Amino acid sequence: MKTVPKSPAGLLRPGVRALHGYTPGEQPRVRGLIKLNTNENPYPPAPAVLRAIRKATDGGLRRYPNPTAQPLREKLAVEHGCAPENVFVGNGSDEVLAYLIRAFVEPVAAVGPRSRSRATVQYLWPCYSLYPVLSQIHGAHANPVALLPDFGLPTTAALRSGKKWDFKAALTFVTTPNAPSGRGYDTAELERLCQAQQGAVVLDEAYAEFADADARELAFRLPHVIVTRTFSKAYSLCAQRVGYCLAHPEVVVALDKLRDSYNVNGLGQVAALATLEHLAYYRRNFLRIRSTRERLRRELTGLGWRVLPSQANFLLAQPPGAPAQEWLGHLRDRKLLVRWFPAAEVSRYLRFTVGTDAEADALLKAARRGPRA
Amino acid sequence: MKTVPKSPAGLLRPGVRALHGYTPGEQPRVRGLIKLNTNENPYPPAPAVLRAIRKATDGGLRRYPNPTAQPLREKLAVEHGCAPENVFVGNGSDEVLAYLIRAFVEPVAAVGPRSRSRATVQYLWPCYSLYPVLSQIHGAHANPVALLPDFGLPTTAALRSGKKWDFKAALTFVTTPNAPSGRGYDTAELERLCQAQQGAVVLDEAYAEFADADARELAFRLPHVIVTRTFSKAYSLCAQRVGYCLAHPEVVVALDKLRDSYNVNGLGQVAALATLEHLAYYRRNFLRIRSTRERLRRELTGLGWRVLPSQANFLLAQPPGAPAQEWLGHLRDRKLLVRWFPAAEVSRYLRFTVGTDAEADALLKAARRGPRA
Repeated sequence: MKTVPKSPAGLLRPGVRALHGYTPGEQPRVRGLIKLNTNENPYPPAPAVLRAIRKATDGGLRRYPNPTAQPLREKLAVEHGCAPENVFVGNGSDEVLAYLIRAFVEPVAAVGPRSRSRATVQYLWPCYSLYPVLSQIHGAHANPVALLPDFGLPTTAALRSGKKWDFKAALTFVTTPNAPSGRGYDTAELERLCQAQQGAVVLDEAYAEFADADARELAFRLPHVIVTRTFSKAYSLCAQRVGYCLAHPEVVVALDKLRDSYNVNGLGQVAALATLEHLAYYRRNFLRIRSTRERLRRELTGLGWRVLPSQANFLLAQPPGAPAQEWLGHLRDRKLLVRWFPAAEVSRYLRFTVGTDAEADALLKAARRGPRA
Repeated sequence: MKTVPKSPAGLLRPGVRALHGYTPGEQPRVRGLIKLNTNENPYPPAPAVLRAIRKATDGGLRRYPNPTAQPLREKLAVEHGCAPENVFVGNGSDEVLAYLIRAFVEPVAAVGPRSRSRATVQYLWPCYSLYPVLSQIHGAHANPVALLPDFGLPTTAALRSGKKWDFKAALTFVTTPNAPSGRGYDTAELERLCQAQQGAVVLDEAYAEFADADARELAFRLPHVIVTRTFSKAYSLCAQRVGYCLAHPEVVVALDKLRDSYNVNGLGQVAALATLEHLAYYRRNFLRIRSTRERLRRELTGLGWRVLPSQANFLLAQPPGAPAQEWLGHLRDRKLLVRWFPAAEVSRYLRFTVGTDAEADALLKAARRGPRA
């Protein structure tokens, strides 16, 4: 009796077949291309970090890594002035974001339409474009609510009168500093938003190290607030996939139940631990990137670009004289890879990562003559 | 209006609060301890693999890794004689197993009791103890069905008459060679089981490289069969978290929609690619481990242990004269860390990883005098 199907498509969950997946920024390896599209740090990891990784590259790789990344949790706790029980480490902060949804949000199919808040992933849009993808993967209800036109946070009064906002949403994401705009938010206004929410609030601080201030204290004061961080951007470790969150210990316990047994790779743990031993090197880089950022903003503005103020390691800017998408091709022809997002709120802008000063000079040179010049 | 809860517990999904999580084998770093509890390979990665990792440890770590691990998929395809479209790479095969459940199995709450098969994760028990944990995390219905007392596969006729087996289960896991027993299965009998299933079947071949034969061909012939593999055990790369599966291209497409954007770390990709360039080194190790395994089995049998035949890099053995748990402590006192599982079907056994010949000698020495001697 042959029951084997010709294709496995009918066996896959219908919800999974309908997924689109996340589109990461391009990662071409083209010689001479200046890559300013995925907010990577232009400076390499500290030499001592590279040495630590090379030193750990030995027969020990045959062993499983520390399953909870415990030494890293302990060192992060010292750095943030909290307990190790407040720290959870993931395979990049993307993994942490996915676990947070699974910890707090029910799939719509599991609770039915009458309990929609319990199945709602809410976010202030535009933001990190992974949230809607993770929400869809989980089978949750996504509730995007617009930021102000200048990418500022709406007040709770405005959210209340706007009707669309759900104060009981199971989980609310806020990218702070915002991506893709770079806009920073005061901790006081973030706290007002958090205080008004009955569900969990995730403050995604992937770019906080480039900002004047951060809101991590909220994760220690408010039990329903979780702050996520990453070693990818500020600490030049995209390749090694280490991110974490700061949260109430009961949230950490829940995430530990959901995670893969050995979710953080061994050399990533080594690299992150060594990074925390050499923060002075990275802080110098933050200053350099901020300085390049401000120069780029000033000079582009002088060339007629409308550049938004940024607290991150990237700038969102509206080019003059031609649509952004046309500029995208123009810059690509000049070996400058930047990012354009099709979403209506941002489609007239280009986003470019703040690179080295030499990369900024190359960008400025290409920015002087537009695609129609 | 203060709505902030004192604890986040009430915000977490009830199903998540009820989880237990997976208990990985101990990873102590005790000097002189002989660690035979988690089936790690006793031999280090090939020197050329370590060199490749060290060489890649440079400023490039600031960049994201290849999001799909494409070069690795292509090289694995050549190795297995399939197309790159048949290969999916994960952060260890544990991650692949978790994605497979999410691709094929509905949560019970999403389909209701009348469609239980669609929400069923089925496995022949005892097996890799992660399956029930992953099933619980997903909110699926777990259906463990006993292997024969000698850990052999029941025939489909026996499964049919036993009533408990679900031929329509959304996903069925088979650990082959079996863990924790080490028992190997013929491809023909695995195929009969697969042919009888209407849902997906995952053949978890984490230990296949230590066996006389493997069943990967079934993943290419039967669209609903997926074969999982790992670089952890045979290729001495536990620390770097690289596993994969071989499957129908439509399954790979579905897994790609579910995975984190950059799920496989950069140095892990480098290590796995380099490993595939030096398979001769690893094949020599497989032979050494098999030879040590057979010697250990012979000598332990001579000492009164009941040792099951094994096709993996571990042995399941019933010690003489005292309960297994007592032997566990006895061996630990002699700095030999082995594994004991509380499940009834295996609680009278100890499982120990096949290490080097020197480690085997240490184990044999300790095995000569029992805890009550």
